[in-house]
Amino acid sequence: LCDLDLVPLDQLFFGGIDICPGHLPEAAAAVGSSSRTFSREMLEAIRPGLEAIDADIECDRDFEWNSRGSAYSARTLNEVVDQLRANISRFKRRHDLKRIIVLDLASAEPTPRAAPAHAELRLLREALANDDRQVISPSIARALAAFMEGCPYVNFTPNLGAGIGALEKLAAENSLAYCGNDAKTGETLLKTVLAPMFAMRNLHVMSWEGVNMLGNNDGRALSDTERREAKIRNKEDVLPKLLKYPVHAGVDINFVPSLGDWKTAWDFIHFKGFLDVPMTMQFTWQGCDSILAAPLALDLVRMAEFAARHGETGPMTQTASFFKNPIAVEEMAFFPQFENLIRYAEIHLARGGSGRNISARKVSAIGDR
Amino acid sequence: LCDLDLVPLDQLFFGGIDICPGHLPEAAAAVGSSSRTFSREMLEAIRPGLEAIDADIECDRDFEWNSRGSAYSARTLNEVVDQLRANISRFKRRHDLKRIIVLDLASAEPTPRAAPAHAELRLLREALANDDRQVISPSIARALAAFMEGCPYVNFTPNLGAGIGALEKLAAENSLAYCGNDAKTGETLLKTVLAPMFAMRNLHVMSWEGVNMLGNNDGRALSDTERREAKIRNKEDVLPKLLKYPVHAGVDINFVPSLGDWKTAWDFIHFKGFLDVPMTMQFTWQGCDSILAAPLALDLVRMAEFAARHGETGPMTQTASFFKNPIAVEEMAFFPQFENLIRYAEIHLARGGSGRNISARKVSAIGDR
Amino acid sequence: LCDLDLVPLDQLFFGGIDICPGHLPEAAAAVGSSSRTFSREMLEAIRPGLEAIDADIECDRDFEWNSRGSAYSARTLNEVVDQLRANISRFKRRHDLKRIIVLDLASAEPTPRAAPAHAELRLLREALANDDRQVISPSIARALAAFMEGCPYVNFTPNLGAGIGALEKLAAENSLAYCGNDAKTGETLLKTVLAPMFAMRNLHVMSWEGVNMLGNNDGRALSDTERREAKIRNKEDVLPKLLKYPVHAGVDINFVPSLGDWKTAWDFIHFKGFLDVPMTMQFTWQGCDSILAAPLALDLVRMAEFAARHGETGPMTQTASFFKNPIAVEEMAFFPQFENLIRYAEIHLARGGSGRNISARKVSAIGDR
Amino acid sequence: LCDLDLVPLDQLFFGGIDICPGHLPEAAAAVGSSSRTFSREMLEAIRPGLEAIDADIECDRDFEWNSRGSAYSARTLNEVVDQLRANISRFKRRHDLKRIIVLDLASAEPTPRAAPAHAELRLLREALANDDRQVISPSIARALAAFMEGCPYVNFTPNLGAGIGALEKLAAENSLAYCGNDAKTGETLLKTVLAPMFAMRNLHVMSWEGVNMLGNNDGRALSDTERREAKIRNKEDVLPKLLKYPVHAGVDINFVPSLGDWKTAWDFIHFKGFLDVPMTMQFTWQGCDSILAAPLALDLVRMAEFAARHGETGPMTQTASFFKNPIAVEEMAFFPQFENLIRYAEIHLARGGSGRNISARKVSAIGDR
Repeated sequence: LCDLDLVPLDQLFFGGIDICPGHLPEAAAAVGSSSRTFSREMLEAIRPGLEAIDADIECDRDFEWNSRGSAYSARTLNEVVDQLRANISRFKRRHDLKRIIVLDLASAEPTPRAAPAHAELRLLREALANDDRQVISPSIARALAAFMEGCPYVNFTPNLGAGIGALEKLAAENSLAYCGNDAKTGETLLKTVLAPMFAMRNLHVMSWEGVNMLGNNDGRALSDTERREAKIRNKEDVLPKLLKYPVHAGVDINFVPSLGDWKTAWDFIHFKGFLDVPMTMQFTWQGCDSILAAPLALDLVRMAEFAARHGETGPMTQTASFFKNPIAVEEMAFFPQFENLIRYAEIHLARGGSGRNISARKVSAIGDR
Repeated sequence: LCDLDLVPLDQLFFGGIDICPGHLPEAAAAVGSSSRTFSREMLEAIRPGLEAIDADIECDRDFEWNSRGSAYSARTLNEVVDQLRANISRFKRRHDLKRIIVLDLASAEPTPRAAPAHAELRLLREALANDDRQVISPSIARALAAFMEGCPYVNFTPNLGAGIGALEKLAAENSLAYCGNDAKTGETLLKTVLAPMFAMRNLHVMSWEGVNMLGNNDGRALSDTERREAKIRNKEDVLPKLLKYPVHAGVDINFVPSLGDWKTAWDFIHFKGFLDVPMTMQFTWQGCDSILAAPLALDLVRMAEFAARHGETGPMTQTASFFKNPIAVEEMAFFPQFENLIRYAEIHLARGGSGRNISARKVSAIGDR
Repeated sequence: LCDLDLVPLDQLFFGGIDICPGHLPEAAAAVGSSSRTFSREMLEAIRPGLEAIDADIECDRDFEWNSRGSAYSARTLNEVVDQLRANISRFKRRHDLKRIIVLDLASAEPTPRAAPAHAELRLLREALANDDRQVISPSIARALAAFMEGCPYVNFTPNLGAGIGALEKLAAENSLAYCGNDAKTGETLLKTVLAPMFAMRNLHVMSWEGVNMLGNNDGRALSDTERREAKIRNKEDVLPKLLKYPVHAGVDINFVPSLGDWKTAWDFIHFKGFLDVPMTMQFTWQGCDSILAAPLALDLVRMAEFAARHGETGPMTQTASFFKNPIAVEEMAFFPQFENLIRYAEIHLARGGSGRNISARKVSAIGDR
Repeated sequence: LCDLDLVPLDQLFFGGIDICPGHLPEAAAAVGSSSRTFSREMLEAIRPGLEAIDADIECDRDFEWNSRGSAYSARTLNEVVDQLRANISRFKRRHDLKRIIVLDLASAEPTPRAAPAHAELRLLREALANDDRQVISPSIARALAAFMEGCPYVNFTPNLGAGIGALEKLAAENSLAYCGNDAKTGETLLKTVLAPMFAMRNLHVMSWEGVNMLGNNDGRALSDTERREAKIRNKEDVLPKLLKYPVHAGVDINFVPSLGDWKTAWDFIHFKGFLDVPMTMQFTWQGCDSILAAPLALDLVRMAEFAARHGETGPMTQTASFFKNPIAVEEMAFFPQFENLIRYAEIHLARGGSGRNISARKVSAIGDR
């Protein structure tokens, strides 16, 4: 995998759109000191880089989901999408970039009700024209803008984003690659690793209860019942898909401010062995959310750039092992998902050498935090 | 896998050799009541079957490793092996069996020092003739007897058994299949499931500490430092092989009588993520040892019978997923091991149908408890 | 404590009122086999005793809280209370009992809104006369009936029961002892043991998150949001009272049918030490709910009988260590609560010898399961 | 407790004797960065203070227990003790201190075999004169030096120190207060909190297995079997003393370098409830060793100074709650121990006001790290 000609990190430019931009070095310092992850030495070393990115972050409060249950302010959806596109192209011109990858890192949003416009591109365009906010959630608007602007789209969030038929068609029309949804960094990752073992050993899982605690902004957003719905569904759906039988699988997500970025999950697995004897396994996962997520986000951007550079379009199924609910992939088990990634790399490596001689390009990632 | 034409359980005959035979129904009742696994209804239902097996269990105290560090009594090794062979052939004749599978379920024994006779069959035969007890441990004697009597051999224990070059040659000479060592039912199983995930996610494991507690006879044997050596080595070797770098991996095995058959393991995994941030995972596994082991033992016997019936000889590498230290297999990760088993089954199924029409045979397993 | 002249178990008669009486031996067998607690031998030994009790259990569906949010059927509150009283006195006459202790073991009920009638006995009597079901919840009705019938009352449940000012006055008028609420058998017991240690060591608790899972009828009742309200409040209130500062203390109660009677709780405690360094403690408690509760229920009945026999009236504050929310007691820490119990016993022992020569009496407990 | 007139921290002078003095600010920085406890800001703020202490730390390698099983170099025991006394008096003169408290913080040492000289002061003096190293371990030598120099002595370590009859007499002769042994900061603290609860609830503890992992210098010393003997005995003795019946109580201490100062303990408690139903509790404690120990060490020094100032001599039984194996105290339960401390404070407060008007004094602590 390491031999694949992914774009080096130092050739990426980062910009973004944020609801409340703040100042990146301060935000990093706050995370570092509350979660005890970065030393002051490290923060000082990366300060110039963070300040450069700061200059490329634009403010757009329209993606904040407010308490009245509505995401957009005075502007119409059309205006919102147009402004997103303008942001992207401005960033591209400013740094003379060859290609932009849109990485969606926004907080969880309430799931919009299923609508015919989600399945059909024509209807989705009408919804955009009619400013139909019941149909077009902020993440859908962002995926729309990315695709209209010719950018591959990576959805790190539990939100729908590009995961609807209508946007699948738009991506195909515009020959764009995309992937998502909902990066798996802890509990769900472990479910997709452990559940296959129970199946292979004929140990029948009766109940699998999971409790997730976290104290960062993500946790705050998820303390809203409506907004955590999609995430919980993604987490709960994994088990029946893996085990092929119904399981009593509860998932709690609790906001515990003192934990900051330290996501702590406890899972309890109640299973039956030979002669129906009940047994238990439990685990506690104490991981730092941002630290687990960051390398996945970077690699997904690099995978999307690689796919785009090689003219690949449609859902990037090779990235299934990164997601709780991978688009266009049925396989939920982590190891076969990862083998697909290896196979993808092997095909590329076999095809034309490592491609190390492909001339360096400026590529860029634009992230909506 | 289920379509493979393994011998049905009701066509197996069970016999055995035990150091202190006791009465099986009583032993089952004791396990059932202390570990609360079998109901009295179940015990009554299986009593006739257990009594029939009882009649086929012969007593041989020569495999007990006594406190003076020696396993055999007055008899020479030659006499010991001859008696084992006589036991096997007597059992075969008594029930007019087509084939005997020897399943080694003895307690852990001290590992004999490495000797040239382990590598070369001629020297091993000399050691047998010379009654060299430094070289031929009880498990080696049992594997020898099995192979000399023409029986496939399954080593469920951490002991050397057939896992030495000399016996490999004897098995080849006699065209016999065999497998081992050290069935994985709990902590080590989980290590071979979880460690690959840490590798695939570039999470560097710094320490992996495991504590195993159990209160059955196995636990009593393992409370002897010398006797647990092989088991601990098998448990510790797994991680560096899986991760390809040295890991601080301690394994404690503690005898806790009150737990009876309920093996309880706690593992603590200390790992580094992105930017070297240290994180932890811990799990507790509470499983009933016999209940987890029994179906593996049965399936290994059936796999060995299947291999023998199809003329397969040598190490049964398709069974690697059953063992902590699979003979002749480098791969330590559970999922690729299991895929090999699936592939083995697929090849057989593709070759000649499920073979369901192969006429029923009497096959039998003989276990040394 | 053991020297206190509590009534021996074999001098107690048990009867009861149940919403769906079933057959006790079958109920015991079901619990025993699903939770693997009772052996068949034990069940057979106690069958005659259970059948005798069965004959003294009367059916009254009026305490079931139905989905329409109302507890009483066609009858008025007055009729309900009268029937309860009739049940009690019939039981007393049938066995020629000296004294009845009413033990409330019903499921959680929605907490009635606070009302002036809870504080004042005259108003409570009016509410009874006016059939005001907003004010008189089933547990209040049961406590009323007990007190009107001259019986001490033990409230094992999270429901209000006798814990309102109006009933305090009625108990005083009738010279009756009573205690409650909400027996502590697991997580909350541990909170009242551990939290004082954090305080005494100046370790500042930032968050204390608890998850409770259980699969019995209690668990089923508590899966109703309205009905678990009182229980969660009792569980949450404990920490701020113990620590004297606000703590982020979440409590989840999840219904996990496969666990049956095995209540499993996981608690995560996030605390700060010297120099504000954050640390964690977590525990898992795997206890059998009925097995933990039964001896507490029996001892409370015996304590109530003892108090009544010695002419003690009012809240039995000596039993505070049994309850999550002890009536008329501010102290929440387990050890000082238990010391009060010891002191109570010492005073009695000092006063008149162990009273062993007090002539044997027939005493009885009547339990609403 | 807070109203007690303990000496304020800013009136303490710190000096010490160390086997490998190093440079304190660097040592603090190393601990801070490896265990992520101190920020660089804090380290910079305390640098001048640490440097001042550095100047008062003298080097004496004689307390290092080397691999050949002997602690003292070329010097005789007499020379060793004399040098210790000289160190103390030099420090006292240099800062014109009123009183020195000797705080023993050395690593675990092998326990010397019981000898008559431990019981009788005359024999101990003879052993000192005869340079009998079998009898006088380094901690005994340190306690001797403290008492001969007229200093109260606090033994934070598992070593014998002043906990022998001979030194008890010397302390009495010299009218000195002292306390120890083996501060409890994690697992054992919890044992002394939890075990009484099991007793009070009649839950019979069958097994209590504890695993301790740590990676600091203490952990390194304890990875030596001989040296951890005393500590393990202190940890194991606690339970039978608390429960009054024999318990299967194993304690493992494992050196896990990656953990640094983060002491992680897992305890597993197997207990029987009503009808002998077996249940379990387990907990994981993740605490920072130095951070938990430091405030205890400071408070013990202040308690010793307070005792000395008020003319109290002999074992400071009021400090029992600080220790695993408190000298001259039978009570092992944490809460009654703490109550004794409260009572001690109340007596002092009742006696003469808080004594706040006692003129400020220079007091000092000298620690052997």
